[in-house]
Amino acid sequence: MPATPLPSSFLVLQPHFNLYFKPLFYSFSHQLSSPSLSFNCTCRFSIRRSPFSPTTRLHCALSQATQAESASDNTSGGGRSGALSPGPLTGDVQKIDVNPPKGTRDFPPEDMRLRSWLFNNFKEVSRLYGFEEVDFPVLESEALFTRKAGEEIKDQLYCFEDRGNRRVALRPELTPSLARLIIQKGKSVSLPLKWFTVGQCWRYERMTRGRRREHYQWNMDIIGVPEVMAEAELISSIVTLFKRIGITESDVGFKVSSRKVLQEVLKRYSIPENLFGKVCVIIDKVEKIPLDEIKKELKAAGVSQEAVEELLEVLSIKSLTELEERLGSTGEAVADLKQLFALAENFGYREWLQFDASVVRGLAYYTGIVFEGFDREGKLRAICGGGRYDRLFSTFGADDIPACGFGFGDAVIVELLREKGLLPELSLQVGNIVCALDGDLQGAAATVARILRDKGQSVDLVLENKPLKWVFKRASRINAQRLVLVGSSEWQRGMVGVKILATGEQYEVKLDDLN
Amino acid sequence: MPATPLPSSFLVLQPHFNLYFKPLFYSFSHQLSSPSLSFNCTCRFSIRRSPFSPTTRLHCALSQATQAESASDNTSGGGRSGALSPGPLTGDVQKIDVNPPKGTRDFPPEDMRLRSWLFNNFKEVSRLYGFEEVDFPVLESEALFTRKAGEEIKDQLYCFEDRGNRRVALRPELTPSLARLIIQKGKSVSLPLKWFTVGQCWRYERMTRGRRREHYQWNMDIIGVPEVMAEAELISSIVTLFKRIGITESDVGFKVSSRKVLQEVLKRYSIPENLFGKVCVIIDKVEKIPLDEIKKELKAAGVSQEAVEELLEVLSIKSLTELEERLGSTGEAVADLKQLFALAENFGYREWLQFDASVVRGLAYYTGIVFEGFDREGKLRAICGGGRYDRLFSTFGADDIPACGFGFGDAVIVELLREKGLLPELSLQVGNIVCALDGDLQGAAATVARILRDKGQSVDLVLENKPLKWVFKRASRINAQRLVLVGSSEWQRGMVGVKILATGEQYEVKLDDLN
Repeated sequence: MPATPLPSSFLVLQPHFNLYFKPLFYSFSHQLSSPSLSFNCTCRFSIRRSPFSPTTRLHCALSQATQAESASDNTSGGGRSGALSPGPLTGDVQKIDVNPPKGTRDFPPEDMRLRSWLFNNFKEVSRLYGFEEVDFPVLESEALFTRKAGEEIKDQLYCFEDRGNRRVALRPELTPSLARLIIQKGKSVSLPLKWFTVGQCWRYERMTRGRRREHYQWNMDIIGVPEVMAEAELISSIVTLFKRIGITESDVGFKVSSRKVLQEVLKRYSIPENLFGKVCVIIDKVEKIPLDEIKKELKAAGVSQEAVEELLEVLSIKSLTELEERLGSTGEAVADLKQLFALAENFGYREWLQFDASVVRGLAYYTGIVFEGFDREGKLRAICGGGRYDRLFSTFGADDIPACGFGFGDAVIVELLREKGLLPELSLQVGNIVCALDGDLQGAAATVARILRDKGQSVDLVLENKPLKWVFKRASRINAQRLVLVGSSEWQRGMVGVKILATGEQYEVKLDDLN
Repeated sequence: MPATPLPSSFLVLQPHFNLYFKPLFYSFSHQLSSPSLSFNCTCRFSIRRSPFSPTTRLHCALSQATQAESASDNTSGGGRSGALSPGPLTGDVQKIDVNPPKGTRDFPPEDMRLRSWLFNNFKEVSRLYGFEEVDFPVLESEALFTRKAGEEIKDQLYCFEDRGNRRVALRPELTPSLARLIIQKGKSVSLPLKWFTVGQCWRYERMTRGRRREHYQWNMDIIGVPEVMAEAELISSIVTLFKRIGITESDVGFKVSSRKVLQEVLKRYSIPENLFGKVCVIIDKVEKIPLDEIKKELKAAGVSQEAVEELLEVLSIKSLTELEERLGSTGEAVADLKQLFALAENFGYREWLQFDASVVRGLAYYTGIVFEGFDREGKLRAICGGGRYDRLFSTFGADDIPACGFGFGDAVIVELLREKGLLPELSLQVGNIVCALDGDLQGAAATVARILRDKGQSVDLVLENKPLKWVFKRASRINAQRLVLVGSSEWQRGMVGVKILATGEQYEVKLDDLN
């Protein structure tokens, strides 16, 4: 093949000169004897010194090894980064721990794409339901979370003393902050409020159970609506989310009950009101710790033997009819639940719901309907959970406002999607890769990149003088749609070379017509 | 006006019955004597008990007072939320501190909209430049940030001991975590990496200076490119951001210099390499603390009187020509800067740049070009800043990789936008508000909401039985485009009433044709 003295994207782009699988083109390596070496070590176009690349190096194919090599080239060859620098070179530099702190995660691009995909679904569903996004500090005063109910969430509080000796905590959940903000806003807000948040929550576990110390949670809350319509709307939004990400009612369901079921039982045995939260937290541990433990804890909390027995019997009920027979038809528990199931029909998710009296949820502040999303195979923890908390505000010393909400974590849902083979394939997508065919043309390539970006096109600009083989490999890695090559002969005519990478189609285009 | 016994959205939507500014329609209040009372207290349509609203109340116009009233109605009237509940009613409940912890922020909807708008601009620009999003834990091991250079950022570390007695810190910046992750990934990543993050950073200040303890920062970093093209690309992306949000080169500029300027001066005086970071950190305080302090600190650090004098002279240089005269034309500092200015021309932002030798930035790890964005009126702190840090990786015990990046906070830019009157007007936008004209039709309204949402339409569903005046007021507050009314006579015919709120146009539409 003839060697051309002048780099030209036109020539490069001619089909028979196509470099994609012909890395030897424009290579000086044909003088070398080893074919494998000649394949790996293609040197480009021109060896004249460009003002933009003070050292001329043999650029080799895309690999870490190459990068390491060129980095060491720099140092030894009097490249850009010699001279004085912050002294890393003393012998006692220890390699840092490259892992994130125990129980936390990094999000490299592939994980971040999944996170963004999930969060965008959370946000899009919230938008469909007319909810407004809010956020609160990840660090709150510890007092906001210290309830006296023995909740797991409180016992695992990630709390500490700050440098000013204040007790603070990384939030374990979002609802207390939401309540705090609403109390602060007072009469300046118009009820009902429909707010959502996607935020990070923390817990500190002493035991190692392979559980993380942080997760992200999607919350939706409706503040100021006493009607069961609110709970029905919240469950509807979760169903919408499930459907969007490919989860059906054969994969997951919702167990629903009402805290009023327990209230009505406890009332019969004259259990004092202030024990209610605590009793719920204990009962939430059924199926997690032995039944004898539960009974012991309930008795220690002051619930009589008789009451304990009836409580446990009622908790085993799985049908609304049976519940009605047990509690009578006049109570609020049954009325609320019947209404929820009727609305579920209207919202179109009746088949997702089942009554299960054992669902109480582990947070002390719920007062009415409670629900949790579960996988029907029963392999995973709850996917999400929520309920009505009409009395939370008064525990903060403010007037109560009827409210309900849910939390939906980012961990279990990803496990479920993985299990079902439903994780989306997400890859980096870049519209254009722009590359100068010569160091002299780096500035021209910058101009081309600017023009494309001004038109809303995404551009990966090749920032160094690299062999075309490297550029094609990178184009493939970043899923670029087009390769735009800036060669000097076209540039002199105000043109660039374009190659559509999916089809192989290639052409020259005037700079002004580049879209 | 005649009172109709049957609620009908068709009737309501007749122009001459338009309720928007006629709240008395369908009101029983015409029997009351006070006009203002009758204005505020319109009761709707039907007083028959609906299965969905166990208590029938007079619904009044949208106000906190009303909400409070209806909440107290609930309690006294045997409404939904009586009975047993977690005991908030003991007399000793103290109102919690409703403010977020000192130096932190809540994001109510109006602030969140601004934050999302800004972050979306950060993300969109990053996408235009082909960067991939990443994130790291907000909590890192303290060791990641403890450099020995006396940086402000290190002295203000928000650090503490966790419950397992580990020293941890809320991250003050993102770059060390980025370096940690890249070291961890090792040879599995292909250089160059172009990564961006939008993340929260923390500092702990003992003094109260009205500065916050947290802010969000947009970072873009290029890892693996030794050429000045990388810095030029980074500044280009910031310029793109500025232009997108309405900031011009008459509002802001970039001061650029290179740490190599200082290196070259210090070299002449044989100042040891390991002092370099420390000297830079001291010099960054010029214009922030008295010059005598600076001189004292430099001498204490081991810089001779002579060297201090020359350093300070060189730092006052504001022209590249003068710098070249002073340092000669063979050094890297001048070559790099000339190249950056030439590329700025190609990228189309030459007029945004000015050379200023006094710019060194306050982080110890920079090694080459440094830059900061400033407001031309000189009222604000730096808007953003960055530079090359080719030696950071070896301070963590790994092989060095050429790298550069910038940080762009969310605080100063918002101050600037406010100052210039450029803050965008962002309001909640909801496509539809869906309302049942009767409690009986709540389920039907839920069905209508589902149909619209399935078609991608956002819907604020009115969850309670509310007077139409209230609904119009809410529609206006949430900027709803359409009001969809579910009345029983239309519903029986499979129709709903629609009103386009901007034009007042109204019509009936079949449920199946609702788009």
